Amino acid sequence: MTLKNDRLLRAFARQPVDRTPVWLMRQAGRYLPEYRATRAIAGSFMGLATNPELACEVTLQPLLRFDLDAAILFSDILTIPDAMGLGLSFETGEGPRFAHPVRSTADIARLAVPDMETELRYVMDAVRLIRRELGGKVPLIGFSGSPFTLACYMVEGGGSNNFARVKALALDDPAALHRLLDVVTQSVIAYLAAQRAAGAQALMVFDTWGGMLSPHLYREFSLRYLTRIAQTLPRGDGSERTPLVLFGKGNAPYLEELAASGAEGLGVDWTVSLADARARTGGKVAIQGNLDPSTLYASPEAIRREVRLALESYGPGPGHVFNLGHGLSPDMDPEHVRVLVDAVHEFSAH
Amino acid sequence: MTLKNDRLLRAFARQPVDRTPVWLMRQAGRYLPEYRATRAIAGSFMGLATNPELACEVTLQPLLRFDLDAAILFSDILTIPDAMGLGLSFETGEGPRFAHPVRSTADIARLAVPDMETELRYVMDAVRLIRRELGGKVPLIGFSGSPFTLACYMVEGGGSNNFARVKALALDDPAALHRLLDVVTQSVIAYLAAQRAAGAQALMVFDTWGGMLSPHLYREFSLRYLTRIAQTLPRGDGSERTPLVLFGKGNAPYLEELAASGAEGLGVDWTVSLADARARTGGKVAIQGNLDPSTLYASPEAIRREVRLALESYGPGPGHVFNLGHGLSPDMDPEHVRVLVDAVHEFSAH
Repeated sequence: MTLKNDRLLRAFARQPVDRTPVWLMRQAGRYLPEYRATRAIAGSFMGLATNPELACEVTLQPLLRFDLDAAILFSDILTIPDAMGLGLSFETGEGPRFAHPVRSTADIARLAVPDMETELRYVMDAVRLIRRELGGKVPLIGFSGSPFTLACYMVEGGGSNNFARVKALALDDPAALHRLLDVVTQSVIAYLAAQRAAGAQALMVFDTWGGMLSPHLYREFSLRYLTRIAQTLPRGDGSERTPLVLFGKGNAPYLEELAASGAEGLGVDWTVSLADARARTGGKVAIQGNLDPSTLYASPEAIRREVRLALESYGPGPGHVFNLGHGLSPDMDPEHVRVLVDAVHEFSAH
Repeated sequence: MTLKNDRLLRAFARQPVDRTPVWLMRQAGRYLPEYRATRAIAGSFMGLATNPELACEVTLQPLLRFDLDAAILFSDILTIPDAMGLGLSFETGEGPRFAHPVRSTADIARLAVPDMETELRYVMDAVRLIRRELGGKVPLIGFSGSPFTLACYMVEGGGSNNFARVKALALDDPAALHRLLDVVTQSVIAYLAAQRAAGAQALMVFDTWGGMLSPHLYREFSLRYLTRIAQTLPRGDGSERTPLVLFGKGNAPYLEELAASGAEGLGVDWTVSLADARARTGGKVAIQGNLDPSTLYASPEAIRREVRLALESYGPGPGHVFNLGHGLSPDMDPEHVRVLVDAVHEFSAH
């Protein structure tokens, strides 16, 4: 099936585009009333994520409203540890919880790479279904959490303010954390490869928490594994290559190193200017980002001004995929999201 | 009264020291059982902060336990907006709350610089009492929140995850936010000058939230006012000059600009290496920091190793004040704090 809108893939390949492509992290989510309706039918977040038909439905919802240049699989970054047997659940207002966090070397020794077409079949089924339903309208992005970010949740047992457990593990038993990261990295590579085989046309890795580490620990426990993924994930060659994009909150200090990892693109948060990110990566990678999501709380006029500033900061030439610097929040106004998406296309049109 | 231990002031003046001085953000706080006992007597956090005798007592508590090279006034960064009439309180487990947040241009127009020796007399009385009780043992540090950080709390009415209101104000009515920042900056300057007159021997400005802004907004709404403070705060000359130190969570991208502000020192968080911070500021300022506070959750051996790495990262030569990259937390072990403090002196002794 021919792809009718290939702006995203052209931008990741650093080829010319007629307008800057745009998609938004968490574009399928609670800020949309139609998402909340489907979520209510599913009964729970994981009920939604594990039902391919419903996951497909919410993946497509934002594309019916907005002129977006990509769909992204509706899922969660914690599906891999859940498939490893950690028992994922979401308490209302409390975020993710694991019933069986990883707390000992014995816990780590028990972890194994899940089978992608049985234990994570619901994800691959969703990818296949979404690809079919998209009908080539826009490309489909698959994704995974980064090894370090998954390790954070696995060790802490959920979200954390200070990452006390995983940071203590990094300092007190680095070999154990490396064993954990090794099996998680193998799983991430298998997971992304399976999503690609099922039809994902671009692949994102979300390193939400690596930027909370000191530089020497970031390089040892996060960057090393991101680089291994970028180096070893099979994803085709030449014009058929599936782009791999590494997003990291707080990754600005490491853009030069990330650009040398072998990934096709880097996603950056809003604390670095796109001009800086572009200059520091020297055309080696595409750059995705990076409007502060809180911009959406301002007026349409301000949103349009900030979109224009971001486009001007990146400047002319190839390799920019517009996005937020982090995900959309439930209290954001869908009409403001529309203003943003339309402004990207309007101000970047040649 | 002669200062018996002047390592801190020598380091801020970039003069040689026999050992690297060390103090810790929130060194007087809930991780100490003796603090919790005094806090119980006071009845509430603000009851403690507004009672000079009790504030003096908790300020001195960590010095009785640990070989620290400075005392820091026990107070809160929100005393200025409280004195402006916003009505500060602390709900248990919820952080600060303002009864009367700043929500309109009329609210902003009503704000006035508080009188330091009446409305904030309790702070100045505490400074005078602590100086007397210290008897020249170590220097006393005074402090204020940064203008932008105070504005965040004043507009949001308390803590925030996304700073939706203050960021929307910055984009939709920048002139109003500048008026707010102007009166707050005048107040901060008067507040720091009054603390200095009362006996504070070094002055810190904590910019907790500036780093959450995009670069163009950081420069407009945070850096500009930090620079104004550094340029206009009267603080003596030559060897009598009271050092002004600008701490900022997430300030790493701006170290060159902050070093050019006129401040004597910069405090940095743990996401930048001290080697980088030192190289990028080129000897213009002293550097304070920057161990990840979560290091204290690890074993004594790991804490010692990380202290040594941080000292080695800064390297030989003057201008380093050891600290954490952020404050101590209530669940930290005082014995681990002791290990840290002692390791700084042990590994930096000539």
